[in-house]
Amino acid sequence: MEIGLIGLGKMGYNLALNMRDHGHNVIAFNRTAEKVKKAEEDGLTGTYSLEELVRKLPKPRIIWLMVPAGSVVDEMIEKLSTMVDKGDLIIDGGNSFYKDSLRHYEYLKEKDINFADVGTSGGISGARNGACTMAGAEEEVFKIIEPLLKDISVENGYIHAGKPGAGHFVKMVHNGIEYGMMQAIGEGFEILQKSSFDLDYEKVAKVWNNGSVIRGWLMELAENAFKQDENLDKIKGVMYSSGEGLWTVQEALELKVPVPVISSSLMMRYRSEEEDTFTGKVVAALRNGFGGHAVAKNTETK
Amino acid sequence: MEIGLIGLGKMGYNLALNMRDHGHNVIAFNRTAEKVKKAEEDGLTGTYSLEELVRKLPKPRIIWLMVPAGSVVDEMIEKLSTMVDKGDLIIDGGNSFYKDSLRHYEYLKEKDINFADVGTSGGISGARNGACTMAGAEEEVFKIIEPLLKDISVENGYIHAGKPGAGHFVKMVHNGIEYGMMQAIGEGFEILQKSSFDLDYEKVAKVWNNGSVIRGWLMELAENAFKQDENLDKIKGVMYSSGEGLWTVQEALELKVPVPVISSSLMMRYRSEEEDTFTGKVVAALRNGFGGHAVAKNTETK
Repeated sequence: MEIGLIGLGKMGYNLALNMRDHGHNVIAFNRTAEKVKKAEEDGLTGTYSLEELVRKLPKPRIIWLMVPAGSVVDEMIEKLSTMVDKGDLIIDGGNSFYKDSLRHYEYLKEKDINFADVGTSGGISGARNGACTMAGAEEEVFKIIEPLLKDISVENGYIHAGKPGAGHFVKMVHNGIEYGMMQAIGEGFEILQKSSFDLDYEKVAKVWNNGSVIRGWLMELAENAFKQDENLDKIKGVMYSSGEGLWTVQEALELKVPVPVISSSLMMRYRSEEEDTFTGKVVAALRNGFGGHAVAKNTETK
Repeated sequence: MEIGLIGLGKMGYNLALNMRDHGHNVIAFNRTAEKVKKAEEDGLTGTYSLEELVRKLPKPRIIWLMVPAGSVVDEMIEKLSTMVDKGDLIIDGGNSFYKDSLRHYEYLKEKDINFADVGTSGGISGARNGACTMAGAEEEVFKIIEPLLKDISVENGYIHAGKPGAGHFVKMVHNGIEYGMMQAIGEGFEILQKSSFDLDYEKVAKVWNNGSVIRGWLMELAENAFKQDENLDKIKGVMYSSGEGLWTVQEALELKVPVPVISSSLMMRYRSEEEDTFTGKVVAALRNGFGGHAVAKNTETK
């Protein structure tokens, strides 16, 4: 298959190599030229403008977007919609919010351009060696991309989740679950760490990966992390987030689904990004106000 | 190895068969005689009293307890301590609270009886075919039981977690993590279910098990559950619990570790056991009080 791939970030680049390994001809474009040069060295066809990419692709074109969610995807789809032809297909393989994907689907449908949203999980190693892909698309469109999804995914690792939007929706919820699972694992290890037992976290993670109920890829990643750095001294406990946990909670609120675990996980991520909290100051001030309880003085103020 | 096994419940029975398959001679006792008869048919040596069990075991005796945590373990250890000899070894393979195990260790140590606490994970299939075992014991005691643990566990599926108590402690935290992971998975599927997409939960769970970040045994169990009953119509969403989640939260409180996810998981289990809540009545009454907001009438009262 001839595939146009836009966006050679970590995920995009590895996905392109994965496609190449399965015999697909990847015609790649990236905002910065160095990565395109690197891609050419790796056997991909490089292009240095969207025009060149579109020109080099046989019709009906298949273009896989792997660019940051939000305005970058919006702009790319708007641009491409003026450059491609009716019957061409644009796939958003990034982490877009599913409502944006629905909007993109409607927008392109009016121009008779096909669209599919594909959520991709499995991290960088998955993108390179076999991912988990969740597609939302009309039946006929899914049929076009199915062989490609099959090739880049692990066995049984792709799904036609449903109509357009369903791919990114299922991927979003996947990430929401991931937030909760990760926070649960983190909390568990902090209990181990604060306890009076002298535990080897790598060994604990390892035994939990062999025969226990909580075995899985996240615990394998934990085992590996403790192997590299037995007490994780080299990193700080700041837990950044990139949108999908937030969207999951927003969706839950809209649907009125109680999600205390997923929402707490998100809140703990935000909390971890704060050095000090205004909540804390307010509560400390109130305790001091009614009971004369001690407050921790901020020594940084003049 | 000659092993006395007390308690032929689901876990104990399967563990006994697992031990038997690895060439150990299991001398079994159970409170009710039928299961002992069944055990004899399955090639285990049955005994019909604790006295008989103790008599039949060569010294130094090794006795594996697989009985309900709490008073049953307490009583069993007290009884056995008057029947066995110095140098014998009692293993608590059940789900005891680690502080109870510490207490049992101290109690038996005074009588020169050895003790090990072994947390066992992997469910019934694990007990039968290869479990995950977490042991707390003195070094010399661990050496005695290591070959047995190796035999009944999957590869790399056993650990000497640390001193007495550490086995049940690590198992407790394992279960706390499990609560959080399970609640996260549950919340995710409820978002899918309440959404406007028409999703096949079995297929979603299946794709998540192949290449995704959240793949693992719990998701495999979810896939299997949806395979049996596509919308889980046959069961109610009541989430019972058996102590280890509670202990994990109590421990976290003692150690002052914030565990919003594990504690929320526990609270949601308790909530699921309530048909109606008094919290809800109070809040409804207050809303009605200050704003005249509607309350749902209880039609069950006369």
